[in-house]
Amino acid sequence: MTTGLEVHLASRPSGWPTPDNFRLVEVPVPSPGPGQVLVRNTVMSVDPYMRGRMNDVKSYVPPFRVDAPLDGGAVGEVVAAGEGVALAPGQTVLHGLGWREYALVEARGVRPVDVTVAPASAYLGALGMPGLTAYAGVVEVAAMKPGDTVFVSAAAGAVGSLAGQIAKLRGAARVVGSAGSATKVAYARELGFDAAFDYHDGPVRESLRVAAPDGIDVYFDNVGGDHLEAAIGALRNHGRVALCGAIAQYNATEPPAAPRNLALAIGKRLTLRGFIVGDHNHLRDAFVAEVGGWLRAGQLRYDETVVDGLRNAPEAFLGLLRGENLGKMLVRL
Amino acid sequence: MTTGLEVHLASRPSGWPTPDNFRLVEVPVPSPGPGQVLVRNTVMSVDPYMRGRMNDVKSYVPPFRVDAPLDGGAVGEVVAAGEGVALAPGQTVLHGLGWREYALVEARGVRPVDVTVAPASAYLGALGMPGLTAYAGVVEVAAMKPGDTVFVSAAAGAVGSLAGQIAKLRGAARVVGSAGSATKVAYARELGFDAAFDYHDGPVRESLRVAAPDGIDVYFDNVGGDHLEAAIGALRNHGRVALCGAIAQYNATEPPAAPRNLALAIGKRLTLRGFIVGDHNHLRDAFVAEVGGWLRAGQLRYDETVVDGLRNAPEAFLGLLRGENLGKMLVRL
Repeated sequence: MTTGLEVHLASRPSGWPTPDNFRLVEVPVPSPGPGQVLVRNTVMSVDPYMRGRMNDVKSYVPPFRVDAPLDGGAVGEVVAAGEGVALAPGQTVLHGLGWREYALVEARGVRPVDVTVAPASAYLGALGMPGLTAYAGVVEVAAMKPGDTVFVSAAAGAVGSLAGQIAKLRGAARVVGSAGSATKVAYARELGFDAAFDYHDGPVRESLRVAAPDGIDVYFDNVGGDHLEAAIGALRNHGRVALCGAIAQYNATEPPAAPRNLALAIGKRLTLRGFIVGDHNHLRDAFVAEVGGWLRAGQLRYDETVVDGLRNAPEAFLGLLRGENLGKMLVRL
Repeated sequence: MTTGLEVHLASRPSGWPTPDNFRLVEVPVPSPGPGQVLVRNTVMSVDPYMRGRMNDVKSYVPPFRVDAPLDGGAVGEVVAAGEGVALAPGQTVLHGLGWREYALVEARGVRPVDVTVAPASAYLGALGMPGLTAYAGVVEVAAMKPGDTVFVSAAAGAVGSLAGQIAKLRGAARVVGSAGSATKVAYARELGFDAAFDYHDGPVRESLRVAAPDGIDVYFDNVGGDHLEAAIGALRNHGRVALCGAIAQYNATEPPAAPRNLALAIGKRLTLRGFIVGDHNHLRDAFVAEVGGWLRAGQLRYDETVVDGLRNAPEAFLGLLRGENLGKMLVRL
């Protein structure tokens, strides 16, 4: 009998996760029943939002269960298809059951991807969930207009790096990014950000004032905390914030300090809007056309930080939370 | 020569204003030049937003100047009209130069009001700026839908008391209010709020949970701080906040500690939107038709706290900041 490895949640982290919170488990590889597909995963996504699912808290996705496998976006090859499934062995597909070598997936949860258009991993990045997140946040949630000045935090991350480039390609007058190291700042500049700063170098408020002396119109928030407070201070009248993530506080055991200046939103008529990518599937066709076009034309760049082997997936996730990735964090199986 | 009294800003308050920050000044009553109107004020509005204008801070309205008269909405009778002005002596008009017995106003800043429809003071309240603020906040900014559960803070104040009633009249399933005394809580219940609580009686979060156990869809915020934090916690998916005021912190010398839970806005897809009434004049016709109709039909109630005499206007303003008013705070001259 063939077996495969899975990564289980061994225990719920309190504060920062540790390797002890994960467990590698060897399980038999099942056969697909009617309507099911067996997929051998080749690459899987590692995402910040997974940290929230490790808490036993009701949210927009159910929490992970202890002693059960984690999950997340993955691309793989069809090994076998059950009765009534129109997928051929060898076909490359996208689905939601990563964190395991072999995934038994319901056929309706599987989407074939065209690896002649872009490499398989792109469907977990620029052409996948992070890409649509960046696109929806800039285009719809923040309703960016040509001529706007846009600030993006976590600018070297999977979503931030795309958000900044999408803003620029759609006519932003100036795009400013923040990131957590000199390397990431240099990377954001390479991507075409007009200015970028390392948030360790001083108060975000001061750095943002230097990078965008005339203020900003849009803030794409991946961080929360002092970044959000600085952005509220810098936003001009009728400014918009797309609240996408709050990685600064995912591992916090104390509540963060408030954005103490939120009352400025009244006089400046600011809009702050939280969003999750799942609410924006109606944009998918426009996203694939526009972002796919920029990728083909070489106008949009995306990079990956790839870790090899499912055994190293927990370390990849911990590294992601520590900010060790440039662009999309992936595990190659 | 006739003289009239004006209230000047004697000095900028730091923290809570005191009577020393105001000065009563007797000035000659001028004659209107071409295009001007001389108005004898009969009633004037006292509004929380004036506190912000006492600071030397750029905002959506310029700060008051020291040693110059304060201003604000007022209703009065035309004494004399300059050349080219089609207003007759004795006519009742609404304008923006209160805080003085006689106002010399440019004719374009003056609007005749019909005192056969409603008493003059209503044009400073339910049919005036507070009314349009409440209407715009509920209808447009928070986009309240029939069936929503709505939470309103400062529910016994000029704006809050109208916002709650407008929400109910437009089909809210449940309207909950908070206020600062047992008298105000009883008053909110009289107005038709389904539940109301005194925020001194315990953490707002707990009181709100009891008053709206299934959560809320809309929060009309006049207060900020812990009220806003409690509302963010109670809001259901796709909930909306109309950020109208932050009276809890107008006199604060330290930044507020809340809301610490703004990151919940992501997963719950909340929208928080700051607004000022001046951006919503396009709603004026609909507002006058709808709210005027409810007033005539006796479906909407509004109350006034009236202080007599311009000399007592500073005390009326201080009382407003201390929350001593039920409904609209006015000074009768």
